[in-house]
Amino acid sequence: MSKVRALVLERQHALALRDIELPLETGPGMVRIAIHTVGVCGSDVHYYTHGRIGPFVVEAPMVLGHEAAGTVVEVGAGVSHLKVGDRVCMEPGIPDPNSRASRLGMYNVDPAVRFWATPPVHGVLTPEVVHPANYTFRLPDTVSFAEGAMVEPFAVGMQAASKARIAPGDTAVVLGAGPIGTMVALAALAGGCARVILADLAQPKLDIAARYAGIIPVNIARENLAEKIHEITEGWGADIVFECSGSPRAWQTIMELPRPGGVIVVVGLPVEPVAVDIAAASTLEVRIENVFRYAHQYERAIALIASGKVDLKPLISATFPFEDSIAAFERAVEARPDDVKLQIRVAD
Amino acid sequence: MSKVRALVLERQHALALRDIELPLETGPGMVRIAIHTVGVCGSDVHYYTHGRIGPFVVEAPMVLGHEAAGTVVEVGAGVSHLKVGDRVCMEPGIPDPNSRASRLGMYNVDPAVRFWATPPVHGVLTPEVVHPANYTFRLPDTVSFAEGAMVEPFAVGMQAASKARIAPGDTAVVLGAGPIGTMVALAALAGGCARVILADLAQPKLDIAARYAGIIPVNIARENLAEKIHEITEGWGADIVFECSGSPRAWQTIMELPRPGGVIVVVGLPVEPVAVDIAAASTLEVRIENVFRYAHQYERAIALIASGKVDLKPLISATFPFEDSIAAFERAVEARPDDVKLQIRVAD
Amino acid sequence: MSKVRALVLERQHALALRDIELPLETGPGMVRIAIHTVGVCGSDVHYYTHGRIGPFVVEAPMVLGHEAAGTVVEVGAGVSHLKVGDRVCMEPGIPDPNSRASRLGMYNVDPAVRFWATPPVHGVLTPEVVHPANYTFRLPDTVSFAEGAMVEPFAVGMQAASKARIAPGDTAVVLGAGPIGTMVALAALAGGCARVILADLAQPKLDIAARYAGIIPVNIARENLAEKIHEITEGWGADIVFECSGSPRAWQTIMELPRPGGVIVVVGLPVEPVAVDIAAASTLEVRIENVFRYAHQYERAIALIASGKVDLKPLISATFPFEDSIAAFERAVEARPDDVKLQIRVAD
Amino acid sequence: MSKVRALVLERQHALALRDIELPLETGPGMVRIAIHTVGVCGSDVHYYTHGRIGPFVVEAPMVLGHEAAGTVVEVGAGVSHLKVGDRVCMEPGIPDPNSRASRLGMYNVDPAVRFWATPPVHGVLTPEVVHPANYTFRLPDTVSFAEGAMVEPFAVGMQAASKARIAPGDTAVVLGAGPIGTMVALAALAGGCARVILADLAQPKLDIAARYAGIIPVNIARENLAEKIHEITEGWGADIVFECSGSPRAWQTIMELPRPGGVIVVVGLPVEPVAVDIAAASTLEVRIENVFRYAHQYERAIALIASGKVDLKPLISATFPFEDSIAAFERAVEARPDDVKLQIRVAD
Repeated sequence: MSKVRALVLERQHALALRDIELPLETGPGMVRIAIHTVGVCGSDVHYYTHGRIGPFVVEAPMVLGHEAAGTVVEVGAGVSHLKVGDRVCMEPGIPDPNSRASRLGMYNVDPAVRFWATPPVHGVLTPEVVHPANYTFRLPDTVSFAEGAMVEPFAVGMQAASKARIAPGDTAVVLGAGPIGTMVALAALAGGCARVILADLAQPKLDIAARYAGIIPVNIARENLAEKIHEITEGWGADIVFECSGSPRAWQTIMELPRPGGVIVVVGLPVEPVAVDIAAASTLEVRIENVFRYAHQYERAIALIASGKVDLKPLISATFPFEDSIAAFERAVEARPDDVKLQIRVAD
Repeated sequence: MSKVRALVLERQHALALRDIELPLETGPGMVRIAIHTVGVCGSDVHYYTHGRIGPFVVEAPMVLGHEAAGTVVEVGAGVSHLKVGDRVCMEPGIPDPNSRASRLGMYNVDPAVRFWATPPVHGVLTPEVVHPANYTFRLPDTVSFAEGAMVEPFAVGMQAASKARIAPGDTAVVLGAGPIGTMVALAALAGGCARVILADLAQPKLDIAARYAGIIPVNIARENLAEKIHEITEGWGADIVFECSGSPRAWQTIMELPRPGGVIVVVGLPVEPVAVDIAAASTLEVRIENVFRYAHQYERAIALIASGKVDLKPLISATFPFEDSIAAFERAVEARPDDVKLQIRVAD
Repeated sequence: MSKVRALVLERQHALALRDIELPLETGPGMVRIAIHTVGVCGSDVHYYTHGRIGPFVVEAPMVLGHEAAGTVVEVGAGVSHLKVGDRVCMEPGIPDPNSRASRLGMYNVDPAVRFWATPPVHGVLTPEVVHPANYTFRLPDTVSFAEGAMVEPFAVGMQAASKARIAPGDTAVVLGAGPIGTMVALAALAGGCARVILADLAQPKLDIAARYAGIIPVNIARENLAEKIHEITEGWGADIVFECSGSPRAWQTIMELPRPGGVIVVVGLPVEPVAVDIAAASTLEVRIENVFRYAHQYERAIALIASGKVDLKPLISATFPFEDSIAAFERAVEARPDDVKLQIRVAD
Repeated sequence: MSKVRALVLERQHALALRDIELPLETGPGMVRIAIHTVGVCGSDVHYYTHGRIGPFVVEAPMVLGHEAAGTVVEVGAGVSHLKVGDRVCMEPGIPDPNSRASRLGMYNVDPAVRFWATPPVHGVLTPEVVHPANYTFRLPDTVSFAEGAMVEPFAVGMQAASKARIAPGDTAVVLGAGPIGTMVALAALAGGCARVILADLAQPKLDIAARYAGIIPVNIARENLAEKIHEITEGWGADIVFECSGSPRAWQTIMELPRPGGVIVVVGLPVEPVAVDIAAASTLEVRIENVFRYAHQYERAIALIASGKVDLKPLISATFPFEDSIAAFERAVEARPDDVKLQIRVAD
């Protein structure tokens, strides 16, 4: 164990930037990474403000942060595809490679996954971390650390876009223009959609997303979404609906949105079971896909960023030095409507 | 218009076997069929007992019956694949061939479909009917009229099995052992499942289905279904769950049944929206497919019956002569637990 | 029949811009269209230079041209989604809507398809044409007639991209940088690929395509394609290989290109059967998809052009007035290496 | 290393049943298995008669046999799903679980796979073997060791049936009625096909397969296969064609067999590249799938055998005691037309 500095969630409502003992030995198949940039995720903030997410309860001090990029500083035995000095980003979830789900290629649904900054597993708001090389991905020279730290939330969008099985030229609707909804919208466009109708009540969020070509913002405080979709699609409906709001209200009218034979991809998670109009879903023969994190998306996400098809930089609202990590979290708690992603630069 | 004898639902609770005027001209692309056998469907019975199903209200006398087989007696212009004397069964729904859904190959979700015995469209409990040749299918010599009249409900099972995208050797669960649940179970077995766990509260229904090899009956009044599935699948869960009960209670625990990455195919329609545990669906990345009637299933269904892979004859509980049609409906209203399918023989 | 002016292929090597009798009655379900722009396709040129393509032989004078856009000037009975004045482009193939393939949603593989400028069916290098409304598609205001006339060749690229079932972020290779290869490359990028490696021997063709972001040109006269792909993909191989050259030589080494579990989409058609290394295909479990024209792609293609995701304008090398149609064909026969698409403006 | 008795291929044409040194230590994640029954595979025989298969050359004495079932006699550390006394069968290929292909769920196309009885890896015609528990599968009480040793070749049929993506009620054609063709036919029937047309020149092979319901034998020495298929499918063509003959001649006419939009699954491997009619494949938009061994099929195969849907016992033509192993191989070399599978019982 090594004594290192880290942003520690002591318990609900209590953050400290302090020293903590963490294991930093680089075993076989592992790499040690100097962390450069870490994004602040809604789940980090939720642990801070609520002390828990569902069954995961903060019962001991825990380092926060799981959206990270950095530089390889040590390479364990048997690692061939990475070398010291490689700029990388990392998947925060480590599955059991021998689980049945992992062997089938669906490691994200392996119940044994250990995920950074999910109790009792420490996160990476700290200068160094040791991680499996298999879940560490090289960044091309043209992709910055800041973009590298955006790969994690973008990978959620990629998983949603993959599950949708987009046919080139599809028309999608995204419900909810928060960070994840925006990531999903960008992944859907990069993944083959001709246009994405993005719906939210908050105009500032819509304004940010609307700067991207192909996104059609709809403020559902002022416009009827179903009517708008049917106008755009000449009465046919959307090929794909991405539910990213997590709001039970979205489910009240969601079956008015897809076309016959369309798909609903569920990304936002309501806390309680929600009422779903099965009869309406049946009439349309709608397919409903559910998304849990991501699997095999990092290299694809990096390729899209590197080729210029996806530009995540405009979504980085502010960057804080490591010493101001707590200020970054306080700003995140504010939930300013025009903040999309806050990042912390751990390295100088 | 021709005056013909028919089983007419005059209004809720009022059936009459009487003469009625029906159009029987065999236009281009049509065939005229002498009806031989018609099955009594739950929807026929529901119109009789309730006078409506959802938005479809019996506002004028309507001939009942839509599960039918018979013999071609006249062939319209331009019909080449059928000839007088062919033994056939018929799809009861006639879509608009020019609708967008039809052109995409999904005619079942065409909102313009006209469906036999769905107000205001007459059914076929009458000696003759004129029907589009495209929706009329020849029966091989080895398939009886009685089996031909079972193709319609079996096609619902086929549509469910198709939507499931069964991988050979899958393990399925079917919730609900009524006629449709049983049809789905048989279609799932014929369609590639190694075994089907069939769950119901009614032991007589389970006993009938359990005569088929590959069906594992579970009486959920006495056994915990999730435990049973996990025992059979060594803790992994079912590849496919077919929800055929239409019961909101089934949805309370349904997410305990599929494996990670599994599928739920929804066949039973709850009257009201039901509470769905989206968070649990997400953790499993479960896919939910919805089924509306069927498309392109008749020839496949007939092929499976003709090859001996599916034997529907044990599901025919009783057959009534046409003159006793009202008695057949009275027996159907009884809902005897060991009745699966009642049929009416229209021809002598 | 009406006497109209048209570009007529009298027989091999003999073109005439002259009057001809054509039917121009606007029956039910049809629209009459004033042609604005028509692209010159390789097949048009091939009929001119060879008098035949495979089994299709020019045995009587035939109007050329099948890549067309124009304006609706008359609407037949029963047409509701188009009106006079609508700017449109048209699918050149008209299937039998009652064929089995059409009803399954695959009208492109209906053997009964009648296709413009394919003997004995006339094409549309003439001021007006009558066409089924179902195969006539409105152009948004932002899409020019010139772009509208590019939808036909781009739809081939769309069909190829659809068959590939692109996962977002895939890496594709396109063999052959002719008009169709370039269209496929653009459709693959719009359809979700992160990058497309485009291979050809002709540097001018590569130079034109390389202006598009995401396209990586490889001159296979100077570089080893397999090595290049393995360098880019870190030894893994391409997710998708689009064979657009039609060259038997391409097949000699094609199995070195895809990754394990990858796909080869065949667009280019060799005249004779080609030698395929089945054993190598097996080792990779490669999937091979074949493409025949397109089905259900026009609206998707138009949506991608309208949203700005696909810009076909740089591919229009020159535009000729109708009176110079023969000159346009003479230029096409030259096959200049930096010509991609020549168009003829029929309307003033 | 332990000295054990084994059937050793010394070099081409030289078999010996003799002692050999093999490693039998049961490491972590491994199990030790007492071999009960081993099937004789065509590849075993080919190494005997030719000394090589493609790039795999017998350069040192090698134990033969890879189709095996037995009983667990020792369990290594960390193995939880197996215990001493379990009756099991084993996958003969051991991939690198960390390879990219394995992590994607396609371990069969991992180039690093080590496969029993493929030089330089020893097979299992010997009393005991140590094997990874992950590739060792429990047999239900109702499945005999003899059937367990048939799971390996049947898994090839399962992989083919899976790649076909059978829709319930499909009509398939299998070219070649050898052991693999017969396995594919049975897997296709169990996997959802209504009927399988099985084509071969050898009547005795067809006679054996024709005992199974759903198989329609066609002797192509006497009947035109394409005509027969079109008669059965009313001119439409087969949904699926499984090429299991490995014969270049089969490829000459194969494109006459599938329906528009159908699929060809390639199981048989011609030694040299074969001429494929790409233009005909295009006209049909046929999909071609290639199969390499199998992945994730053992449990599915066992479930189908256990449920009674697949009966492999009639395919076991003769069983030899271990001491007569060489006689078993001599009989296999005879290639009697009515021999399907020969087995060797290693345990008493």
